[in-house]
Amino acid sequence: MDIVLLSIGKVSSSWIKEGISLFESRIEKYLKFVNKELPDIKNGKSLAIDKIKELEGKILISEFCSSDIVVLLDEKGKEFSSRDFSVWVQKQLSTGKKRLIFVIGGPYGFSEEVYKKADFKISLSKMTFTHEMAKLFFTEQIYRAMTILKGEPYHHD
Amino acid sequence: MDIVLLSIGKVSSSWIKEGISLFESRIEKYLKFVNKELPDIKNGKSLAIDKIKELEGKILISEFCSSDIVVLLDEKGKEFSSRDFSVWVQKQLSTGKKRLIFVIGGPYGFSEEVYKKADFKISLSKMTFTHEMAKLFFTEQIYRAMTILKGEPYHHD
Repeated sequence: MDIVLLSIGKVSSSWIKEGISLFESRIEKYLKFVNKELPDIKNGKSLAIDKIKELEGKILISEFCSSDIVVLLDEKGKEFSSRDFSVWVQKQLSTGKKRLIFVIGGPYGFSEEVYKKADFKISLSKMTFTHEMAKLFFTEQIYRAMTILKGEPYHHD
Repeated sequence: MDIVLLSIGKVSSSWIKEGISLFESRIEKYLKFVNKELPDIKNGKSLAIDKIKELEGKILISEFCSSDIVVLLDEKGKEFSSRDFSVWVQKQLSTGKKRLIFVIGGPYGFSEEVYKKADFKISLSKMTFTHEMAKLFFTEQIYRAMTILKGEPYHHD
């Protein structure tokens, strides 16, 4: 099973790119990890927030397949400890589905249509981060989950 | 009032250093921010975990003054949304104390003596991060808190 991190908009900060690349390369030792960054909505700044969410929603949904498990990274989602998250990931990996897709929304969140398509909602923190920082934190947590599942010494409870 | 981020051990990753420096320079527009990294315990690898925590605790406590508010960044602490954290920071800034000190512990956590000296415990997330990532995470949240308090457009609820 592959893990996909799906988001709209590219990371522009070079130091965040470097961090994400580091964790990506570490995750690749355990399973296939795809960091898929879709292009921003054109002329987004001239559009109303609900319109942006609707357009982003359509683009995100077009990426989903019936053989995917779709997980939104959402402030209203369930919070896990890193260890509990690793156990949860392992459970998803054993379902026989093809892809475990984690979706990072834009600054205004997800449209209702995206919520309806999602299998799970997970929150990294009650605090809000930038889209770029969320990608960095998330890739570190996926790497951490892999090391926990393998009993490697990266993580301390 | 100054804000101090106190920790043991230096950040070694250049990309994390770059991120922390970026947020530090932004925070400095609002108030004085000191990122104080104390040296690691000598020969720490040869010591038992409780001994490391005890020695780290002594070093941390030697930095505290009676005019400080001491806040531990601790997984057992209270979680805030970014907005609620900003309100909480403002309340501390108005107490007339000299320094608001946030303390990041080592991988094994804090000694009992440090817990006894603390005024508050705050958790950034139920998930565990590296010491270095926690510093990055935290400096972004302090910057975010400042922009929320000033009504600036960085943060979206």
